[in-house]
Amino acid sequence: MNGDSSPANGAPGSANGAPGSKVTARSTKFERSVLKRALQITGAPKVTVRLWDGATAGDGGAAAATLTVHGRAALWRLLARGDIAFGDLYSDGGIAVDGDLTQFLCEMFTATARARRENRWLDAAIRIFTPRPRLNTTTGSRRNIRHHYDIGNDFYRLWLDERMQYTCAYYPDQTFTVEQAQRAKMDHVCKKLQLKPGDTVVEAGCGWGSLAFYMAQNYGASVTAYNISAEQVSYARARAREAGLEDKLNYVEDDYRNISGEFDAFVSVGMLEHVGRAQYKTLGDVVAQCLRRGGRGLVHTIGRNRPRLMSPWIEKRIFPGAYPPTLREMMDIFEGRDFSVLDVENLRLHYARTLQHWRERYEAALPRVREMFDEEFARAWHLYLCGSQAAFLSGSLQLFQVVFAHGDDNGVPWTRGHLYR
Amino acid sequence: MNGDSSPANGAPGSANGAPGSKVTARSTKFERSVLKRALQITGAPKVTVRLWDGATAGDGGAAAATLTVHGRAALWRLLARGDIAFGDLYSDGGIAVDGDLTQFLCEMFTATARARRENRWLDAAIRIFTPRPRLNTTTGSRRNIRHHYDIGNDFYRLWLDERMQYTCAYYPDQTFTVEQAQRAKMDHVCKKLQLKPGDTVVEAGCGWGSLAFYMAQNYGASVTAYNISAEQVSYARARAREAGLEDKLNYVEDDYRNISGEFDAFVSVGMLEHVGRAQYKTLGDVVAQCLRRGGRGLVHTIGRNRPRLMSPWIEKRIFPGAYPPTLREMMDIFEGRDFSVLDVENLRLHYARTLQHWRERYEAALPRVREMFDEEFARAWHLYLCGSQAAFLSGSLQLFQVVFAHGDDNGVPWTRGHLYR
Repeated sequence: MNGDSSPANGAPGSANGAPGSKVTARSTKFERSVLKRALQITGAPKVTVRLWDGATAGDGGAAAATLTVHGRAALWRLLARGDIAFGDLYSDGGIAVDGDLTQFLCEMFTATARARRENRWLDAAIRIFTPRPRLNTTTGSRRNIRHHYDIGNDFYRLWLDERMQYTCAYYPDQTFTVEQAQRAKMDHVCKKLQLKPGDTVVEAGCGWGSLAFYMAQNYGASVTAYNISAEQVSYARARAREAGLEDKLNYVEDDYRNISGEFDAFVSVGMLEHVGRAQYKTLGDVVAQCLRRGGRGLVHTIGRNRPRLMSPWIEKRIFPGAYPPTLREMMDIFEGRDFSVLDVENLRLHYARTLQHWRERYEAALPRVREMFDEEFARAWHLYLCGSQAAFLSGSLQLFQVVFAHGDDNGVPWTRGHLYR
Repeated sequence: MNGDSSPANGAPGSANGAPGSKVTARSTKFERSVLKRALQITGAPKVTVRLWDGATAGDGGAAAATLTVHGRAALWRLLARGDIAFGDLYSDGGIAVDGDLTQFLCEMFTATARARRENRWLDAAIRIFTPRPRLNTTTGSRRNIRHHYDIGNDFYRLWLDERMQYTCAYYPDQTFTVEQAQRAKMDHVCKKLQLKPGDTVVEAGCGWGSLAFYMAQNYGASVTAYNISAEQVSYARARAREAGLEDKLNYVEDDYRNISGEFDAFVSVGMLEHVGRAQYKTLGDVVAQCLRRGGRGLVHTIGRNRPRLMSPWIEKRIFPGAYPPTLREMMDIFEGRDFSVLDVENLRLHYARTLQHWRERYEAALPRVREMFDEEFARAWHLYLCGSQAAFLSGSLQLFQVVFAHGDDNGVPWTRGHLYR
């Protein structure tokens, strides 16, 4: 292949496209040339694009995945709107990827990142045309979170671990199952916070409540856990009741901005992505108010090496209001209130592994997902899981775990050895 | 004591001040009232200030250190110029501290920091009147570094460890001597860089060359180490020759900006403080150029929780051009070149311990220091060591060790467990 073959110069005879495609006419030389140029501008990824008439552009080599574009309309949407069109077209079948979707997306992300580093005009254009995340006012946050988390516990149960943890797991042993790794993650967090029986903890954004539950059950802590997703809070409360841990677990259906009281530890795992850049100082104020002198804090979040908006498709269809911060941006939380950052750990590859495990379960559950929703929903979430895996594998996304304390606290741990004993 | 006693209302009869003071007249009510107000503005530290005529202000309680001001001129210099006057007056005997100097300074730093947090006018005033650090152009850096490091190896040998390491040590065991802790620090750094035999390392700012030496001797690495202090480089070269490690150790008397070649690891321990805020992006460019794909980097530096200029006295008399960055500011090194921060460790209390050990040796060597220099120099460096210890103890200074790699490197260590085995 030479990176641009028209059907006339030797493409195989699949000119009538894949099933479900509408073929209006053969692709024009102009279309093929624009496509070729678009691939060059976005860093010449090693992928093959096959058009509805069998014409191809780009060269992914024998083993790589192929992107098939099922029609002229799909091609032009893709060229004009990039990421967001890719997501919607993938979901509605306007395009398809033959081969491993994660591998295809990794190649795309890596090439685009390289192109953006090398071409500041491209970088500026992408910045300008990427829509801003939706607002995270208290009302906005509630709407954004419900969009994602109130899809239904039954759906998440199909592919998350048994404890329903929807954040990066920790694999000290690479043969761990996702169940083992989620348990190891919770132990890692509890050790970083030096939890001991009787400690009081406040958790901002508690998901289905599993970390709070684990802290109460295994570390004897009393946890007040905030979440604005009604479905999740009701699930968490039921689980606490069943286990007879109600006296140690207080699940509050409210915004983190309304946290009150004083605690020995502050923890937030996988909420900062939903907090929004403009609110980090406010979060710092909340922590300063609720963390007692001598207390310890931990923030666990998806992040970036350099500032980038979330993929617009993810922001639009999956995670409204989401923004993964850089470490620099995260310092808004800590600097204003003179917190001291004690420890930052980057668990990027652990999230790639977690997503691999989720994705395998999701793929096994696809028939059930189609029954519960429809084909478009099923494809969209598959793309989201594979795309996230690719983003962590390619270094487009990071996972930061930050431990902090009050700036003048001399009771902080002497080394980090206790985490590894 | 009520925080302001004139000689008339009960101060003991030391009205003629300590030895060496010039007493021109009794302190006036106005002077005592300005002093009292100054103490209030700077956070009401729990210290007692005794004037030349025995009048006191402030209340340090029974156990605390007392600051004695030997004369009117000293008082007004102190009130007008704060930090810088304190340093110079302490050095020339215009003031004295009875009791533990570190403890006295800790109390001062803690109170002032609190006052600055609570009073943004004070904070702004201090910012405005704190002189900027001297420039770190290649010529400026050379001048600044010679000021500090070319005082003479014999002087530093009096109080540093046997390997002449002038950076924070690491005490995995709190009973370690400074020798043991400096060795542990080097092992910690080498493990963080995952050094193995045959690796090539470039070191920016190598001091007396001990880390490079250790890497060559104990890890089989080949190290090219840059330093602009002629005295230090000549010391390091002699030591490499004696040990027969010349084939593995290349000490270069040059600026980090002139690093060339490609290496498996980049390391810089205690140089960033001297690099200057404006040069971090340049440092990032240097690292990007010399760190091969798959390589690992480590930057170890004194830092801050929030942006603050260096103490003007330290900047003027001890460390010209010095600036301890916040983590946010350090990101200038990494973000622009898409490096991924893998690990940040804060070793603040380890530096306080290191300084305690240095200070004990320095105090034991004081007669020798007075012989080599003079009383003023001896007092200035004692203040510098105690002041630095107090700054780390009070949380005014931090010590950050940052490990990083290229942003798309999937060969990074899976966990940090290898550091603690």
